[in-house]
Amino acid sequence: MSDQVYIEDLGQHVDQEVTLKGWLYNKRSKGKLHFLIVRDGTGIAQTVVFKGDVSPELFELAGHLTQEASIIVRGQVRADERAPGGYEIGLTGLELVAAPTEEYPIQPQEHGTGFLMDHRHLWLRSRKQNAILRIRSEVIFAIHEFFHLRGFTHVDSPVFTPNACEGTTNLFEVDYFDDKAYLTQSGQLYAEASAMAFGKVYCFGPTFRAEKSKTRRHLTEFWMVEPEMAYGTLEDVMQLSEAFLCHIVARILEKRRPELEVLERDLAKLEAIQAPFPRLHYDDAVKMLNEGGIDFEWGGDFGAPDETLISEKYDRPVLIHHYPRAIKAFYMKPDAENDKLSLSVDVIAPEGVGEIIGGGQREDDLQVLEAKIAEHGLPEEAFKWYLDLRRYGSVPHSGFGLGVERTVAWICGVEHVRECIPFPRMLYRLTP
Amino acid sequence: MSDQVYIEDLGQHVDQEVTLKGWLYNKRSKGKLHFLIVRDGTGIAQTVVFKGDVSPELFELAGHLTQEASIIVRGQVRADERAPGGYEIGLTGLELVAAPTEEYPIQPQEHGTGFLMDHRHLWLRSRKQNAILRIRSEVIFAIHEFFHLRGFTHVDSPVFTPNACEGTTNLFEVDYFDDKAYLTQSGQLYAEASAMAFGKVYCFGPTFRAEKSKTRRHLTEFWMVEPEMAYGTLEDVMQLSEAFLCHIVARILEKRRPELEVLERDLAKLEAIQAPFPRLHYDDAVKMLNEGGIDFEWGGDFGAPDETLISEKYDRPVLIHHYPRAIKAFYMKPDAENDKLSLSVDVIAPEGVGEIIGGGQREDDLQVLEAKIAEHGLPEEAFKWYLDLRRYGSVPHSGFGLGVERTVAWICGVEHVRECIPFPRMLYRLTP
Repeated sequence: MSDQVYIEDLGQHVDQEVTLKGWLYNKRSKGKLHFLIVRDGTGIAQTVVFKGDVSPELFELAGHLTQEASIIVRGQVRADERAPGGYEIGLTGLELVAAPTEEYPIQPQEHGTGFLMDHRHLWLRSRKQNAILRIRSEVIFAIHEFFHLRGFTHVDSPVFTPNACEGTTNLFEVDYFDDKAYLTQSGQLYAEASAMAFGKVYCFGPTFRAEKSKTRRHLTEFWMVEPEMAYGTLEDVMQLSEAFLCHIVARILEKRRPELEVLERDLAKLEAIQAPFPRLHYDDAVKMLNEGGIDFEWGGDFGAPDETLISEKYDRPVLIHHYPRAIKAFYMKPDAENDKLSLSVDVIAPEGVGEIIGGGQREDDLQVLEAKIAEHGLPEEAFKWYLDLRRYGSVPHSGFGLGVERTVAWICGVEHVRECIPFPRMLYRLTP
Repeated sequence: MSDQVYIEDLGQHVDQEVTLKGWLYNKRSKGKLHFLIVRDGTGIAQTVVFKGDVSPELFELAGHLTQEASIIVRGQVRADERAPGGYEIGLTGLELVAAPTEEYPIQPQEHGTGFLMDHRHLWLRSRKQNAILRIRSEVIFAIHEFFHLRGFTHVDSPVFTPNACEGTTNLFEVDYFDDKAYLTQSGQLYAEASAMAFGKVYCFGPTFRAEKSKTRRHLTEFWMVEPEMAYGTLEDVMQLSEAFLCHIVARILEKRRPELEVLERDLAKLEAIQAPFPRLHYDDAVKMLNEGGIDFEWGGDFGAPDETLISEKYDRPVLIHHYPRAIKAFYMKPDAENDKLSLSVDVIAPEGVGEIIGGGQREDDLQVLEAKIAEHGLPEEAFKWYLDLRRYGSVPHSGFGLGVERTVAWICGVEHVRECIPFPRMLYRLTP
């Protein structure tokens, strides 16, 4: 592969002879010209085959290529504004590596989503899917980079857990030799243990929810990153969330602009993602909903229409904080000034994407937490190790979780999270 | 947390007044002096409390602190070669955040591994465990960095799979609504599909093996990184493996030297990890074993003692290539020059750690692969999508898988992989 040039790097080879190794994405012919649109996974490039420049055999070969034929192309790179990507290749050499054995099933015409999902292993080759997942790759790197630069230690939480983190519903059960295990729904409790050992940590892995919901926001398997900070407060979590999202969006704007253009994403909407983000107390969010004509009662959790109404008031993510204790998990620390509220924060993305971050400050008092576990009817024995974190060197601490696929959906302007993960798993989708 | 300084950064604050937020790791007292060893997750620092410098109350408080008390310490940073880490703090302020409610269970004396594993959530705070997992964090970042710098797209393979990748043994089965799913043993088949869509890719996630083996090299849940290159050959995989391991080791030597010193790691052994690595044809490896007095027959796979004998001949990882087809997976491409051999390579780490990389070139011919699937008695319907990769735009391609925990064990000089993952999962270990 030593002499191979990638399409994303063509700009560094203008007026040079290069070799591309890829596949035929599309083709047009016009008299003495064939236009071969070649893809190599990093972009697409137009290759021009002029009858006068090549042998008759080569011209004929080019004319008979079919979609997704694997080809090695040699030619001269020319800057050309009209060409996709801004460069064109004047073909001088062409090698057919393998012709498709059958007609390629995904044609330029529209297919239904079910059909495309059944062919996900091939659909990934389409321009839009390629752009979304190249952005996803960059989002993941930006996440690691952000925490690495800030001195967080990456400490993985386990996937196999002996019990439920927040109740036993929606859990996937596994036969673990002679025992039962459950697939993690959140790495947080383990991240708390890690924070007591490493100070600032994050875990980052797949998480699993056996939810029977079939919405555009749900996957049974999705990736979540969860930072946790010893000696961190609610304020620290709010500041970290803000800096984190700004970093991710800035990185995508810097590195993945061609892909955002493929997706016809409104860049101004992403360029607006700058600190500070608006902050909204839960009480004020309720008022906003009521003033917006939604009959919402204090104490409830926000649904998708509520989140949409709130997010539409702003051009950047909004931090809603101090949710009622009753609707948050048992480990949330109550507000010292108002016992009905918790030191929690959710971040709602703009443009109706909904919640992408949930977090807050954790209960660090042993007796309060023991009482909470009893009150929620959770088995104390299973939480013994978690309570140990309050027995030995308890400190205030806080953190959050960010769902990767929802974040990618927001940045890409894509409606459904199923396109934001390479091989989505949903209620009725376990293949390919 | 704004005024907090981390112990790993003390060198930037010599002769300054700093605030540390952490825990009491150890304590000695001698007349008018208390020496508090403080840990904050990034290292440990000695803090000196001199009776003449502080109030009587503060001196008494310092004297009564117990192990793992959470404390905030203020004081002057002094360079001191005798102190652990090279700096000492002259204490001026001390705040007890929380005293342990009971005596800390992990005492400086030796505990059995079972006890320590039962207290893994606390054991992580010990110096050696902390060092291993800080190195693991850096190894993971170095992996992402390596592939990112080389233009690989990160494309996750799914954890839920509808069928076995290499047979049905050792699989964890999950109730997936009204269906059955299996936890992935390897992301490779999906990485192959991704390589056809993105060119150069890697997947990186937890993988699962329900092996009943209880060895120092086995976990039921471990992390694996798997690059795959469209248009890649066996030679490309060998070169990539070499560059990859050199990058990881160089990064650890550069960034995690204090942790290697805590582990008393022989740095010369890591500094020797430089390209080129020795390459050994399978046939020659067999000869080497026979000459070394091991009764090994051509055609077999190497066991731990075989790998140890071979690796002891070299001061760096050794690439063993061209294994017999019969002992490799169905998707391995045979050697065109000798049909009994495969275009495969395993990398054996030095110092008896064993195999850390397995890879090779994949079969790209549709009919050959169909025959192989039938020959291995695998259900063709389940591999239809995988065969599609050979129907539409098949290209030579190659890749490998690296096990993270074994790599960390090698770099750290640690005997057992269970210490190289935060919360190990093994045959009889599912907690905490």
